[in-house]
Amino acid sequence: MDLRQLGEFGLIDRIQKRFPPPASTVLGIGDDAAAILPSKKQHLLLTTDTLIEGVHFDPAFSTFQEVGYKSVMVNVSDIAAMGGTPRYILISLGLTGRQRVEAIDQLYKGIERASRETGLDLIGGNIAFSTGPFFISPTVVGEIPKKEMVTRAGAGEGDHLYVTGTLGDAAAGLALLKKGIDTKLFGRLTRRYRAPQARWREGRLLAKARIPSAMIDLSDGLSSDLSHLMERSGLGAEIDAAEIPLSAPLQRAALQMGVDSIEYALNGGEDYELLFSVPERKLKKLELMIKNGLIKAYRIGKMAPRRTGLMLINPSGRRRALAPGGWDHLKKGEKG
Amino acid sequence: MDLRQLGEFGLIDRIQKRFPPPASTVLGIGDDAAAILPSKKQHLLLTTDTLIEGVHFDPAFSTFQEVGYKSVMVNVSDIAAMGGTPRYILISLGLTGRQRVEAIDQLYKGIERASRETGLDLIGGNIAFSTGPFFISPTVVGEIPKKEMVTRAGAGEGDHLYVTGTLGDAAAGLALLKKGIDTKLFGRLTRRYRAPQARWREGRLLAKARIPSAMIDLSDGLSSDLSHLMERSGLGAEIDAAEIPLSAPLQRAALQMGVDSIEYALNGGEDYELLFSVPERKLKKLELMIKNGLIKAYRIGKMAPRRTGLMLINPSGRRRALAPGGWDHLKKGEKG
Repeated sequence: MDLRQLGEFGLIDRIQKRFPPPASTVLGIGDDAAAILPSKKQHLLLTTDTLIEGVHFDPAFSTFQEVGYKSVMVNVSDIAAMGGTPRYILISLGLTGRQRVEAIDQLYKGIERASRETGLDLIGGNIAFSTGPFFISPTVVGEIPKKEMVTRAGAGEGDHLYVTGTLGDAAAGLALLKKGIDTKLFGRLTRRYRAPQARWREGRLLAKARIPSAMIDLSDGLSSDLSHLMERSGLGAEIDAAEIPLSAPLQRAALQMGVDSIEYALNGGEDYELLFSVPERKLKKLELMIKNGLIKAYRIGKMAPRRTGLMLINPSGRRRALAPGGWDHLKKGEKG
Repeated sequence: MDLRQLGEFGLIDRIQKRFPPPASTVLGIGDDAAAILPSKKQHLLLTTDTLIEGVHFDPAFSTFQEVGYKSVMVNVSDIAAMGGTPRYILISLGLTGRQRVEAIDQLYKGIERASRETGLDLIGGNIAFSTGPFFISPTVVGEIPKKEMVTRAGAGEGDHLYVTGTLGDAAAGLALLKKGIDTKLFGRLTRRYRAPQARWREGRLLAKARIPSAMIDLSDGLSSDLSHLMERSGLGAEIDAAEIPLSAPLQRAALQMGVDSIEYALNGGEDYELLFSVPERKLKKLELMIKNGLIKAYRIGKMAPRRTGLMLINPSGRRRALAPGGWDHLKKGEKG
């Protein structure tokens, strides 16, 4: 069906049927604003991140369902990086004449799946019609007990750096898709690019156990995101190249593409793993949680004095300064 | 300066300097998410509304400062329609290579002005770079004491309908601009189109006094927005054409353009006045507030049984059914 036939209010009705107001919401879709009743003694976390067709996704590589799913996950990832619990979501859409109702249904199917997986209630949004590229701009609201919030700013010198999973997979997945390489063998990589998993359970667990001194999610790439954490904490950092967790498919794919796999891990974005710093005195507690299978986390380096800048230590022991090579939304034209 | 030269993080720094974190904000711009501490016993209101270049504004008619200002006001207007107090704002931008840093500075100047006027703290957002039209998508957070919230759904049969100001001005202003008519004589009309005032003080005052049984802001046009209020309240309505407040400039402009001024008032959007229903027993209180100069409000009709639908009563007493003639974001291509 053509979207213009259905109209804005027809589409809103359709969305409203898919997302009936949950008990925890005071007022959901369909009024001038949504209303919620925040929990006592919790900070409310607010974040917004946009996906634009042709910039953040390519319809040739991702289905509408995947785009909807991913748009939720990239926002949940920001809540995860504060240690918060995802609670509510608003979806702002910029539609064009090219989208049919079926595509928008698929988009909301992906939004619904990601929302259900992460505990989000869809409570509102906006639909606009445009000539330009399709875009989706969710706003996600999370909650966190006052004393458990983790920012980018709290890292101390000597704190150990951890990541929650393998790095570079999503960037390698996108590179494979762009090169038109048969990706059947590399499902893990393309899946991580198309339908990333936000580590909100991990973020919440870590924050509740008061383990991280600082935390950020890896959306732009390790070198770039670690630089933000360094800057906000007023420190430098050293990364042990040999310690960065790399998946077997990434290593195979890098070999096939003739690229050093570490490049994807250092500068490739969109893995949505968490990067966090851990003071020495919390190390035992974290290592026990890892050992007991409560959480996956890999030590990759440590915080250093500011003058150190960002250093990569190669397996041979050679050190080289690392420039933030990740994603800047204004300086580059296309992601990956 | 070229935006690409400044880069995303350079631009964020620039914005951060303009909007230092206020005391009421736990965590402002610069981390993964913003954090606020909601007030006790208040509902939190959330709304988002997007302005897209070429759809919701024309760079030939509005400066970047006006676009920034208006983008805030249209969102504040949604908070006003619930009776709430505007508190926080996040700004999501879709930039293109055509915007220079100077234009974005102007945009934020307008955002800053509107935020200051309405008591908003800018606490976060997102910047994306796109090939398509420029867009700005604010999310505004408001607060309202639990028992004072006003929705679209509470109107009763026989409740009187009021608006907070003259209607049709913004639509006539846009029509003048489009026709290239010298607008010096019609400053009030074009100003209302370019830099609308959200009636949040009025909304707050009415809600606090528990006067409205239902309320909505007039963004799409009286016929269209009243239809939403009717639908959500399960009722019909009758409008007295002679009672609709029309400004003198609107009447002059309509004459000059050969259009019936009532058409702008009924079907023209973007006035951002509040439309609210008042039960008979609250009428005296409201009329006293009006008489004492606390608020401007004009009675334009009353709620009727559902079967009435939406009726316009002409000065001669003749009744005609009114079709919602306002703005549907998917069905039409351009606003106005």
